[in-house]
Amino acid sequence: MIKVSIFGASGYAGGEILRILLNHPKVKVKQVTSRQFVNQLVSLVHPNLRKRTDLVFTHPDKLETCDLLFVALPNGESMNYMPKLKNLANKIIDLGADFRLRNKKVFEYWYKKEHKRPELLTQFVYGIAELHREQLKKASCVACAGCEASVSILSLYPLIKHHLIEGKIIIDAKMSSSQAGVKPSLSSHHPERAGAVRSYMPSGHRHTAEIIQELSTYNSNLEVAISATAIDMVRGLLVTIHTLPKKNVIEKDVWNAYRTEYQNEPFVRIVKEQQGIYRYPEPKILQGTNYCDIGFEMDKITNRLVVIAAIDNLVKGTAGQAVQAMNLMYGFPETMSLDFPGLHPI
Amino acid sequence: MIKVSIFGASGYAGGEILRILLNHPKVKVKQVTSRQFVNQLVSLVHPNLRKRTDLVFTHPDKLETCDLLFVALPNGESMNYMPKLKNLANKIIDLGADFRLRNKKVFEYWYKKEHKRPELLTQFVYGIAELHREQLKKASCVACAGCEASVSILSLYPLIKHHLIEGKIIIDAKMSSSQAGVKPSLSSHHPERAGAVRSYMPSGHRHTAEIIQELSTYNSNLEVAISATAIDMVRGLLVTIHTLPKKNVIEKDVWNAYRTEYQNEPFVRIVKEQQGIYRYPEPKILQGTNYCDIGFEMDKITNRLVVIAAIDNLVKGTAGQAVQAMNLMYGFPETMSLDFPGLHPI
Amino acid sequence: MIKVSIFGASGYAGGEILRILLNHPKVKVKQVTSRQFVNQLVSLVHPNLRKRTDLVFTHPDKLETCDLLFVALPNGESMNYMPKLKNLANKIIDLGADFRLRNKKVFEYWYKKEHKRPELLTQFVYGIAELHREQLKKASCVACAGCEASVSILSLYPLIKHHLIEGKIIIDAKMSSSQAGVKPSLSSHHPERAGAVRSYMPSGHRHTAEIIQELSTYNSNLEVAISATAIDMVRGLLVTIHTLPKKNVIEKDVWNAYRTEYQNEPFVRIVKEQQGIYRYPEPKILQGTNYCDIGFEMDKITNRLVVIAAIDNLVKGTAGQAVQAMNLMYGFPETMSLDFPGLHPI
Amino acid sequence: MIKVSIFGASGYAGGEILRILLNHPKVKVKQVTSRQFVNQLVSLVHPNLRKRTDLVFTHPDKLETCDLLFVALPNGESMNYMPKLKNLANKIIDLGADFRLRNKKVFEYWYKKEHKRPELLTQFVYGIAELHREQLKKASCVACAGCEASVSILSLYPLIKHHLIEGKIIIDAKMSSSQAGVKPSLSSHHPERAGAVRSYMPSGHRHTAEIIQELSTYNSNLEVAISATAIDMVRGLLVTIHTLPKKNVIEKDVWNAYRTEYQNEPFVRIVKEQQGIYRYPEPKILQGTNYCDIGFEMDKITNRLVVIAAIDNLVKGTAGQAVQAMNLMYGFPETMSLDFPGLHPI
Repeated sequence: MIKVSIFGASGYAGGEILRILLNHPKVKVKQVTSRQFVNQLVSLVHPNLRKRTDLVFTHPDKLETCDLLFVALPNGESMNYMPKLKNLANKIIDLGADFRLRNKKVFEYWYKKEHKRPELLTQFVYGIAELHREQLKKASCVACAGCEASVSILSLYPLIKHHLIEGKIIIDAKMSSSQAGVKPSLSSHHPERAGAVRSYMPSGHRHTAEIIQELSTYNSNLEVAISATAIDMVRGLLVTIHTLPKKNVIEKDVWNAYRTEYQNEPFVRIVKEQQGIYRYPEPKILQGTNYCDIGFEMDKITNRLVVIAAIDNLVKGTAGQAVQAMNLMYGFPETMSLDFPGLHPI
Repeated sequence: MIKVSIFGASGYAGGEILRILLNHPKVKVKQVTSRQFVNQLVSLVHPNLRKRTDLVFTHPDKLETCDLLFVALPNGESMNYMPKLKNLANKIIDLGADFRLRNKKVFEYWYKKEHKRPELLTQFVYGIAELHREQLKKASCVACAGCEASVSILSLYPLIKHHLIEGKIIIDAKMSSSQAGVKPSLSSHHPERAGAVRSYMPSGHRHTAEIIQELSTYNSNLEVAISATAIDMVRGLLVTIHTLPKKNVIEKDVWNAYRTEYQNEPFVRIVKEQQGIYRYPEPKILQGTNYCDIGFEMDKITNRLVVIAAIDNLVKGTAGQAVQAMNLMYGFPETMSLDFPGLHPI
Repeated sequence: MIKVSIFGASGYAGGEILRILLNHPKVKVKQVTSRQFVNQLVSLVHPNLRKRTDLVFTHPDKLETCDLLFVALPNGESMNYMPKLKNLANKIIDLGADFRLRNKKVFEYWYKKEHKRPELLTQFVYGIAELHREQLKKASCVACAGCEASVSILSLYPLIKHHLIEGKIIIDAKMSSSQAGVKPSLSSHHPERAGAVRSYMPSGHRHTAEIIQELSTYNSNLEVAISATAIDMVRGLLVTIHTLPKKNVIEKDVWNAYRTEYQNEPFVRIVKEQQGIYRYPEPKILQGTNYCDIGFEMDKITNRLVVIAAIDNLVKGTAGQAVQAMNLMYGFPETMSLDFPGLHPI
Repeated sequence: MIKVSIFGASGYAGGEILRILLNHPKVKVKQVTSRQFVNQLVSLVHPNLRKRTDLVFTHPDKLETCDLLFVALPNGESMNYMPKLKNLANKIIDLGADFRLRNKKVFEYWYKKEHKRPELLTQFVYGIAELHREQLKKASCVACAGCEASVSILSLYPLIKHHLIEGKIIIDAKMSSSQAGVKPSLSSHHPERAGAVRSYMPSGHRHTAEIIQELSTYNSNLEVAISATAIDMVRGLLVTIHTLPKKNVIEKDVWNAYRTEYQNEPFVRIVKEQQGIYRYPEPKILQGTNYCDIGFEMDKITNRLVVIAAIDNLVKGTAGQAVQAMNLMYGFPETMSLDFPGLHPI
């Protein structure tokens, strides 16, 4: 049993880590912090945890030592605390953006703020197990990927590694409301947000930087464009990725690339059916699961390869990815406490 | 052409009045006020009005004289301004709760605040045309009914007037998010509010007072209980009203009561079909319309009369009711600019 | 390890049993039947089970012997097969309506068809563990309750047993689309069903018979009326129950009754909070769980006791209830494989 | 007053034409046909039209002469009736796909069936007023554009005409359920369709042919790819169009092209705001309107021009486009009966 705490547990990512850890046979949750809800039951904020735990929120200043600390703060905050947190915990998994990018300048270009702890950047392993499993096993600091980056990297990695597509890539992302976090605003106000098909970021999505960082190992000439549309969905993320196959690439090559990379992966499924209504990845049936479902279609008329992939942004895109990393870091079975299969219908 | 202004036009009720008035052939909208959006185009806040008007918001302090002033402020505010507003406009239609109840004490009991202008209470006519048409024609001050009260009163009025039901009445109301107004909060935050079936007010709904006030003319022994549940709907309101028919009352009596009261009403429809999937009132097809659809079923096994009624809370429940009152006050055709039939499918 | 088969596994209830059983450490699923999908992978129909099982559907005529058989057929069908099925399996759990009512005439009144196997009616134990735990432990045949009956019985049972409420009860039920099953029709067609607030059964709901059967043990003078409204929800069920407390009953009595009956129940939670936005039961956070959440409010003005309760109709209302019964029948831990806590936000 | 009939009026397009025409001061609706609902009130099928019309459905065999006939049949059917229909009406507006493509072979390639009346193909004017206004004024036969083609053509036409973009175009379309028509199926079944983000057609969308036909006038080297994703929306259509600007093209050029082509268009709005939450086109506020809202963003990093456009698929994409064409054909004001501004919030 390891002792684990969550720094920033009143948000959606923190709550989801807690949900997963409460069922984890090798983990004891020691403390969960919140400034706003000190001494309140966690179930006040996360009502799904009623009768599952008696934990109350602790003020962040009262955080004690633990084996592993999950850090789930708004972007730009964890770098302020990191040196102190590293004294409290042997291992740290950060879910924010602060330590994902290895290059200080790249961070500052996309996040428009100074990075205060650039010396720590290289200590963090990027949290996608499918790309960094061996590093994660030995890591003491992990920076989990952004949700949009996670699903895009997992979709594209085999294609780029196997040299099947050109470097110009367009990612058309369909996003849910939980991605914007727990803080209310007019843009998340139900009468405005319900039913919306909102082009909130036609270009310039920050996760572009992570995608290029991770995939440029295999193609240094990548040009990635993301257009993000928010739809009426609380949880889930689907990307439609428009790519150009290299000359003479056929469908079988794509199958081979995905199979080579993912046939032993417990959380990646290739979804490409001939019949039924779930022929391609569908985020709604992934709610609560750690799966990344990936499908594709070759469009011979326009010589395109369309890749479609879906995740639950709060699980494989955030908290589940973090627990998968934890399982690797401690030598637990990689799927431990991540085996919820999802619901149908939903 | 009358000159009309809207005091408080950046909220949902104000926006809806504006939408209706911009198409009204007898009305010119002179000013629309907002503190927050001074000098901004109304289409910034009400994007459906793009290319329909060049109006910009005026600061409330710059409100000028007009023929008719619509007042659309949060409950408890219009009483502060009313004496001043009566100097600016010949006629006033207030959409808030301040002048709906004729009795100061009843207001203070339900709204938990002192009424600052009790001397004005009796000057206001309650805005439901189906009950107060002749008074409205002569009125200079109108207080529009609350949305929940509007649909409940319209449903119950014929039954109580014709002595068909007992005084104990249970109203189970299914409510939408626009009723709570334009101000974001955690309870309206999309990840929390979407998909919700929230019993936010199992008892104690303030509109009870209006319902009793309006219907006690016909039965002084009313006991009305409202239980309100918020569902995943932006616009619309449905009530399921559980009543006890008096002895020997049969379905035909109910039909007669509704026909007697409503057969010439332009905005009330009795909906009780033998076939199809729209056999009873359905709020979704009423979006944007000024209809109140009413249906009923006699339950012989338990001796109940279940009444079902639906409106668009922002139209018949608020802005449409107000324009209908305006049409009566000025002798315009009662349905003028209120003839949108609603959409199907939607 | 017991060997279990599912007769009728392509519907929503059958799929949900399968989802739960695939994670159950004491159960091996032997066969799952479907006429339409013979030899097809179950994941064609239940896409959440991809990579979780290689099971294919078997034709019902090829059903073999097993320890326990779940029967998930449309109402009125299982009675045709029951004698034959009892030869194939030691124990049977039927999810349909055929064997819920002990009285042939009551069945025929509500279901408008002849009961072909009335001699078997008394062999079945009604499947709600909270009321029939000891009987279930010894049962060989179980008839699971209807979903609407399940949540209503669980809500009312302590109140009626402890003589706290009068016999006249009104249940206002908010229903989801999965309750109507997997067969498409105009009423389930997305453009018609989405956004609907449809009073599809203002009176005469068949589950009334079960509720009266189960609760008349404690009050033989019950008069139960259900009004059912379908809302835009796939999974979940909320009831708002309007009751009359007996004289001098106070809130503390209600708390006592619920605590007495349910304090040791693993799947019943009393939800009545002073703060937060989840103060009463909310079906959306119960999706996938076996909980029944119950809350209440005393309305002193109208002397009502409003009870609010929520379940996932496919879990506690169907498949989860069935697995809970199975766990009892075989002496497995009662919560085995039913421990999913639900998601938030969702 | 012209006499107009609708051939195929029980579907969504037919119902929407009827809704618009019932308010049209220059039109009398003479007959509306349906095989299935002969002699039934139209409000049985289109419940929004209750109390708006007493029309009943006529059997198609009883169709009489009229001035103008709207034909709203499933694709591939109107060609069977067209010669006969041309004898019944002076003017015909067909809403199906049969007469949109001028080239028989192109039709047969995309629709996989023989065209039975190729000799009539050239008699039809394509129904988009913004491109063919003068022809429509003189037309006796009009073929309205497909909904996806309508919004894509309107978005791209100025850019291609003004030589601002390259010929390779990717259209990522977000589609609603009403597009698939009134016939229920498993794919439209609410438990499956609600909440879906379904990649139902990653390539090969038939509307590609219309888009190329209409725009190849200005660039004969077009390569258009559509990827269509169905989302949880009943009405509405949004396209995110990924294009490559030609060398040295700047944002001002794009503004100029749109302004030149559309500044006098009553139903096209350029939506590109600096603030607010409706900065780009949003289909939800277009429900019931005949607007096509178009916005764009230059992505300098990847040298893309992202165009975003939205319509109500049943209005500007179908019935409203048809009525706009009718207004032109008869010299009525072009916006007559098409002035509904849309709702907010919704």
